[in-house]
Amino acid sequence: MKQYDVIVVGGGHAGCEAALAASRMGCETLLFNINLDSIALMSCNPAIGGLAKGQLVKEIDALGGEMGKVADRTAVHFRILNASKGPAVQSSRVQCDKQLYRLTMKSVVERQPKLHLFQALVDRLLVEDGRVVGVEDQTGVSYGAKAVVITTGTFLNGLIHIGMAHYPAGRAGEMASLPLARNLSELGFEMGRMKTGTPPRLKASTIDFSRLERQDSDPAFEPFSLSTHHLREERLPSYFGYTTPETHCLIRDNIRLSPLYGGIIKGIGARYCPSLEDKVMRFADRQRHPVVMELEGLDTEEVYAKGLGNSLPLELQEKIVHSVPGLEEAEILRAAYAIEYDFVQPTQLQHTLETKILRGLYLAGQINGTSGYEEAAAQGMWAGINAALAVQGRPPFVLDRSEAYMGVMVDDLVTQGVDEPYRMFTSRAEYRLILREDNAALRLTPRGFELGLISPELQEQISGRIQQISEGIKRLSSLRIYPGVNVNSKLEQKGSPAIKNPLSLFQLLKRTDFSWDDLALFSDLPDFPEDLAACSDRNVRKQIEIEAKYEGYISRQREAVARMKALENRRIPPGFDYSAIPGLSNELKTKLSRVAPETLGQARRITGMTQAALAAVLIIIKKWE
Amino acid sequence: MKQYDVIVVGGGHAGCEAALAASRMGCETLLFNINLDSIALMSCNPAIGGLAKGQLVKEIDALGGEMGKVADRTAVHFRILNASKGPAVQSSRVQCDKQLYRLTMKSVVERQPKLHLFQALVDRLLVEDGRVVGVEDQTGVSYGAKAVVITTGTFLNGLIHIGMAHYPAGRAGEMASLPLARNLSELGFEMGRMKTGTPPRLKASTIDFSRLERQDSDPAFEPFSLSTHHLREERLPSYFGYTTPETHCLIRDNIRLSPLYGGIIKGIGARYCPSLEDKVMRFADRQRHPVVMELEGLDTEEVYAKGLGNSLPLELQEKIVHSVPGLEEAEILRAAYAIEYDFVQPTQLQHTLETKILRGLYLAGQINGTSGYEEAAAQGMWAGINAALAVQGRPPFVLDRSEAYMGVMVDDLVTQGVDEPYRMFTSRAEYRLILREDNAALRLTPRGFELGLISPELQEQISGRIQQISEGIKRLSSLRIYPGVNVNSKLEQKGSPAIKNPLSLFQLLKRTDFSWDDLALFSDLPDFPEDLAACSDRNVRKQIEIEAKYEGYISRQREAVARMKALENRRIPPGFDYSAIPGLSNELKTKLSRVAPETLGQARRITGMTQAALAAVLIIIKKWE
Ligand SMILES: Cc1cc2nc3c(=O)[nH]c(=O)nc-3n(C[C@H](O)[C@H](O)[C@H](O)COP(=O)(O)OP(=O)(O)OC[C@H]3O[C@@H](n4cnc5c(N)ncnc54)[C@H](O)[C@@H]3O)c2cc1C
Ligand SMILES: Cc1cc2nc3c(=O)[nH]c(=O)nc-3n(C[C@H](O)[C@H](O)[C@H](O)COP(=O)(O)OP(=O)(O)OC[C@H]3O[C@@H](n4cnc5c(N)ncnc54)[C@H](O)[C@@H]3O)c2cc1C
Repeated sequence: MKQYDVIVVGGGHAGCEAALAASRMGCETLLFNINLDSIALMSCNPAIGGLAKGQLVKEIDALGGEMGKVADRTAVHFRILNASKGPAVQSSRVQCDKQLYRLTMKSVVERQPKLHLFQALVDRLLVEDGRVVGVEDQTGVSYGAKAVVITTGTFLNGLIHIGMAHYPAGRAGEMASLPLARNLSELGFEMGRMKTGTPPRLKASTIDFSRLERQDSDPAFEPFSLSTHHLREERLPSYFGYTTPETHCLIRDNIRLSPLYGGIIKGIGARYCPSLEDKVMRFADRQRHPVVMELEGLDTEEVYAKGLGNSLPLELQEKIVHSVPGLEEAEILRAAYAIEYDFVQPTQLQHTLETKILRGLYLAGQINGTSGYEEAAAQGMWAGINAALAVQGRPPFVLDRSEAYMGVMVDDLVTQGVDEPYRMFTSRAEYRLILREDNAALRLTPRGFELGLISPELQEQISGRIQQISEGIKRLSSLRIYPGVNVNSKLEQKGSPAIKNPLSLFQLLKRTDFSWDDLALFSDLPDFPEDLAACSDRNVRKQIEIEAKYEGYISRQREAVARMKALENRRIPPGFDYSAIPGLSNELKTKLSRVAPETLGQARRITGMTQAALAAVLIIIKKWE
Repeated sequence: MKQYDVIVVGGGHAGCEAALAASRMGCETLLFNINLDSIALMSCNPAIGGLAKGQLVKEIDALGGEMGKVADRTAVHFRILNASKGPAVQSSRVQCDKQLYRLTMKSVVERQPKLHLFQALVDRLLVEDGRVVGVEDQTGVSYGAKAVVITTGTFLNGLIHIGMAHYPAGRAGEMASLPLARNLSELGFEMGRMKTGTPPRLKASTIDFSRLERQDSDPAFEPFSLSTHHLREERLPSYFGYTTPETHCLIRDNIRLSPLYGGIIKGIGARYCPSLEDKVMRFADRQRHPVVMELEGLDTEEVYAKGLGNSLPLELQEKIVHSVPGLEEAEILRAAYAIEYDFVQPTQLQHTLETKILRGLYLAGQINGTSGYEEAAAQGMWAGINAALAVQGRPPFVLDRSEAYMGVMVDDLVTQGVDEPYRMFTSRAEYRLILREDNAALRLTPRGFELGLISPELQEQISGRIQQISEGIKRLSSLRIYPGVNVNSKLEQKGSPAIKNPLSLFQLLKRTDFSWDDLALFSDLPDFPEDLAACSDRNVRKQIEIEAKYEGYISRQREAVARMKALENRRIPPGFDYSAIPGLSNELKTKLSRVAPETLGQARRITGMTQAALAAVLIIIKKWE
């Protein structure tokens, strides 16, 4: 039996990051995928990033992951979402050439030293004394490892539904992973069933784009990755349109043909990402719903018909497509479908994403009940890092809720579990004002460097930037302007109110009507920081400006973090007995005993937990200590 | 139920040509593939062309097919095989970027008007009164058509073997097509079982290429297609090496672990394309066998390890790979495997590739018991053309053995059937001296034009070329040189013997030591065809030279064709009663009654047919007439 340090089962978005992280940290890593031609395939839309997801991609990149780099290299349409809103909720989103994305990620994975790639279907885990020691593939070959990461996405017991027909598959046209699903449940994992769906793919030449509203790529765009120096030149537009009353009629009249409504699909879907059936049935008063045509690549006719996801029979799918203005003649290349699959309830995981039942086994991605490429990639990286650290006998890597969106997601998953597919939202992050896309590198690159995933050059560059920012803030804070005709006429010129008291340039930057470039107005001041004002690092300028403009909010959030940490980090002794605590409901007692939170913070986030209950626990802990 | 003219089931090499031909001829055509991402995937090596196969590709191109064009656009390594031998056995072979090939063909198929593409697994045929009227897919949706072409390759009841393990699959990592196989056999088709295999894919960075012999692409190369004007610039080398006594030992010592030898695989493999197990066991005296490392693409580490095909367990595969100098450390990315699959005995087909049992049903490609991309593509095109012609009520399209390699193949298949995977060889073509790669366009472009598959411009170009050639031959034949010092000293200068009698320039071209360029020696002759000698069409020059040099052989072959045609075309009346013919063995009587040959030519090619038996049949026919 060949021995590896880490084995990763599944080369999707989670698996690629897991395997890359582990091998880059020095572990001999073996990555399995059912078919090498489907590595990093985008199961659904050809886009990376988006609200809260852009943050995840930048965090992955800041830690030394790959998703952002590959997205940058293969993107053909760029957008900043919420560009007009505050920096906390701004996110980047790109559309990629789907085939290029897949091939580029495959070639990165192939070229990574210590990463061994192999095409095979893994059927079961090898277990010894409560520890996973390897895996066995479909042909009965065994492979040994000190840690195993499972990232099998929607493939465990995958079952595709189109109308009343259903058949096993991991994705349309791909085989499901049946024995591994059985094996996990035999090993004692509590499994659940979820469902997701995808819209039809249409043929570009059969769409009347003139009847849809064209949206071009944003002209300027900040790449996801710190190491991207140029983007490709080709750009593809998107096209916007709407469903019609006819669309809605078709669905209402035929809803009994939807497996979602016929009671056939038992898996839980995401409320926030409803199928078209759901939208029509649940929001009966809405006259129309938006649809977006996203081209899947530079050299293909395939178009992703966002907004038209459903699980109705093919004939109805066609009628629905044709009811949308511009799509009257559109041909379907791939049918829409829903898929049900098994997931593992993530309360069975520790914060490292190691399972509680089986030592050495880590789970990441859709198998944990999440949804989305970025969520998968972030977990994959996290699990890969922790698997490597465990193999190397180093302490685990866990980011908390104030450090990263990743930290929020993992904490949510392992503490609260999931009752529908979990997707990242900015609203899930209490401290989203300090967890911005724009400061992901500042927050996490040093951590990536410690892990060995960030090169010394990059780390130096970022720590230089961090220093420039804090120095810049200091210098701008110490340089004051004084009320007077000279100064106030300059301000007036910019449409900014006159000052009555002395003010530092940093304070001036707080004004919404005063921007970094306006600093130049005061270049005649002695000690004016010429070098800083002309700083070529856009990022330094942006950070200082954000720190100025949002100083009040940011410092309040930093204080909240400090308070939270003090409480959060309060450890609950292992084996803590909840049954004896007065004033706790039986339900909460059972829950707390099952989850066995390690800290008060973790206890706090258990669903159903109240302030009163938390106080009761805190009292007992204090007594104990 | 949606109605089409032609439905093609399977988007491999046969299916793509079938669907393109039918739609280009004006038929509304629907093409199914299990997964749109595997259209035109090369199941085995990343090469197009080769001995006798290059001829097929040029014939496909001359008729207006696509394989040659896509190969030209994606090729990264070029060779002329048998470059030092006669033109009849010279063939072109290229290695392509496998992913580019697939994506390029997909994009051609997507962009073809009247061609409708759809991802689905077809489960059964719809039949009415002995006629196929459509198909039904996995989800129960029906699609109507006037003709159906099945091109499902190795997918019917596909079963993969690696050592003693086996599991259903159409190719590694892809699902098999089980219900359609059952349906065909229920419809009364005689099915057989074949097997083929593929070598492992190795990781380039783990190969020590310095221990292998590098072979670079040929610098000059004639594209496959008449319409290719430039080839891509990137080139990839190949690397040659050899197995060792250790390799052979490993196989001999473990032969009981091979499913081929353990009696587990029942399907018939090709004798001419033995697996490594076969080579070692059957040619025990051979000290070594060649292996070639072919890079699968520009941007991938995958290397096709030609010559190392086997079906042994993975651990042994690794040892075998490592026993080859240069591959000591090589890592396997995809395991070698053997696959068994169902085929339909092609004696159940007419010369149009329509089945005898079910009107409107055509079969093409590996399903007919052949092997190879080019064989599949040629049949696919043939079946697609005939399906379209039938739908349009036009007479069928059949090339005979003297017109094309395609004609040889189809005639062999439907007349003799197959007892092992059928592959094209130059030796199968009796008239190979007139069925050359270099004259494929001259032979077949006019036919492609008649079918509507060749543009008027291209047809004009080719008919211009045909005229230039025949005129050129005339002009060179009429221009004579006379013995004399002036002439003979020129000849001597080229190392060519002096002449004693007058000789035409055409006769002079017969000499092996006298080439086209040497004609210029006689440019001082009055009436010297300046324009012809300087003709920019390399092809015209080449054709005239070949016609000169091989005139004797060629004309003898043309006469043989004429004699054959007279006899071949002699029709056998339908329902002809063989039982009463004296001197025919019972076995032959049964065979003849079953095959029911339409012509004497077809009867002649039935295996077991003797000259005497043929004469007996001829006598009765003459009596009848
Ligand atoms: C139909 C569909 C619709 C979707 N819609 C959306 C959506 O609208 N929005 C959204 O955010 N997300 C959507 N998703 C989810 C998104 O695709 C996933 O969240 C993301 O791809 C998960 O990444 P992953 O790495 O966990 O798994 P995947 O990307 O699914 O990759 C799993 C990989 O594991 C491999 N594998 C599986 N089993 C084995 C085994 N036993 N041995 C070896 N290899 C194995 C597979 O070959 C595959 O490559 C959808 C997914 C599907 C299938
Ligand atoms: C393992 C292996 C090794 C091989 N080795 C060699 C070799 O050494 N030399 C050689 O010359 N040839 C070899 N071949 C054969 C070569 O790949 C085939 O001859 C060639 O690809 C056949 O082309 P095709 O179009 O007939 O079928 P394929 O290329 O097999 O394509 C069949 C297509 O049909 C689709 N399909 C199947 N069933 C259905 C259905 N029910 N509904 C919808 N779509 C369907 C599939 O998705 C597939 O795309 C090998 C093949 C395999 C699998």
